Amino acid sequence: MHPEPVDTRTRILEAAARVFAEKGYHETRMDDIVSASHTSKGSLCFHFPNKQEIFFGLIETFTGLLEARLTESLAAEQHGLEQIEAALTASLRLFSQYRPLAKIVLVQAVGLGAAFEERRRAINDRFTTLIQARLEKGITDGSLPLQNAELAARAWVGALNEIVIHWIYTGAPDLETAAPEIKIFLLRSIGAGNS
Amino acid sequence: MHPEPVDTRTRILEAAARVFAEKGYHETRMDDIVSASHTSKGSLCFHFPNKQEIFFGLIETFTGLLEARLTESLAAEQHGLEQIEAALTASLRLFSQYRPLAKIVLVQAVGLGAAFEERRRAINDRFTTLIQARLEKGITDGSLPLQNAELAARAWVGALNEIVIHWIYTGAPDLETAAPEIKIFLLRSIGAGNS
Repeated sequence: MHPEPVDTRTRILEAAARVFAEKGYHETRMDDIVSASHTSKGSLCFHFPNKQEIFFGLIETFTGLLEARLTESLAAEQHGLEQIEAALTASLRLFSQYRPLAKIVLVQAVGLGAAFEERRRAINDRFTTLIQARLEKGITDGSLPLQNAELAARAWVGALNEIVIHWIYTGAPDLETAAPEIKIFLLRSIGAGNS
Repeated sequence: MHPEPVDTRTRILEAAARVFAEKGYHETRMDDIVSASHTSKGSLCFHFPNKQEIFFGLIETFTGLLEARLTESLAAEQHGLEQIEAALTASLRLFSQYRPLAKIVLVQAVGLGAAFEERRRAINDRFTTLIQARLEKGITDGSLPLQNAELAARAWVGALNEIVIHWIYTGAPDLETAAPEIKIFLLRSIGAGNS
């Protein structure tokens, strides 16, 4: 009996994440993923025609997780700035929980060059838009001062990206420990520091 | 009569910046740089054994310029936060002035993969350290509230990097026009927003 296609796809992605984390993206061969995922070469090729597509699948998985966490936190019934705080906490916790996957997405991706850079920019734009919409809501309801919400949102994405990449390479600072300090910095930057 | 070696090196870098900007890094051949710089192949190879070394030379040139501007602004006789403001203005102006070079350094570099990523991280660390030292001075002299200066400095580097890369790709927002807004954002983030 064959498992559902969606399960096979997930199983391949989970196996690929383990193999990439262990051997590195460049050293990994499609055959390694076939054995690690207990699937057939044909099935692997059906879901992902090549290694780069598996990689992009992992990026999409992680981005989707992060987007879901953010959207959930922002939709929760909370007062204005508490929503933003909760969203930041949820995002930093996600990186802590999925450090190997985050490492693959943010670090090993560099070797892919221009093809990945385009996706990286599209992903950053998605998060910028998500944050920008929330900041605009705050500006409209008066909980935030008038400001260029797109610029602020982009600066947040850049700041968080740099902090997370540094943490992935060095392990410091521990993201959950540093979370309160990061939140103070970001909330102050949009003029919400005294709340 | 042969020109001074240092002049040849500079002439090669200037020519390479033009050729990279026009043809792209990957399409550029060493011979293109030989003709554009009016030098000999032997001389080119003496200064830069391969194309990647020329590229790294350009990165180092731009990083050196930016570091010099920052250090000058921070050394100027001004009151605490004015120094930081002046340094930000000087940095944003440098990117505006040298957009083609900045584009080569920040965008085309992506294609170089891991070798460049290591340099990019080292450069970001250099700027983080420079900003961190200045923030620590502000914390010590009481012009800034107590905070994790390294974290704030790293967040600044990430935020500025993201804003500049977006500007290089899209032309928006114009960096000099957006400079006041960027400065307000950054000064607020470190608790200096009401000055």
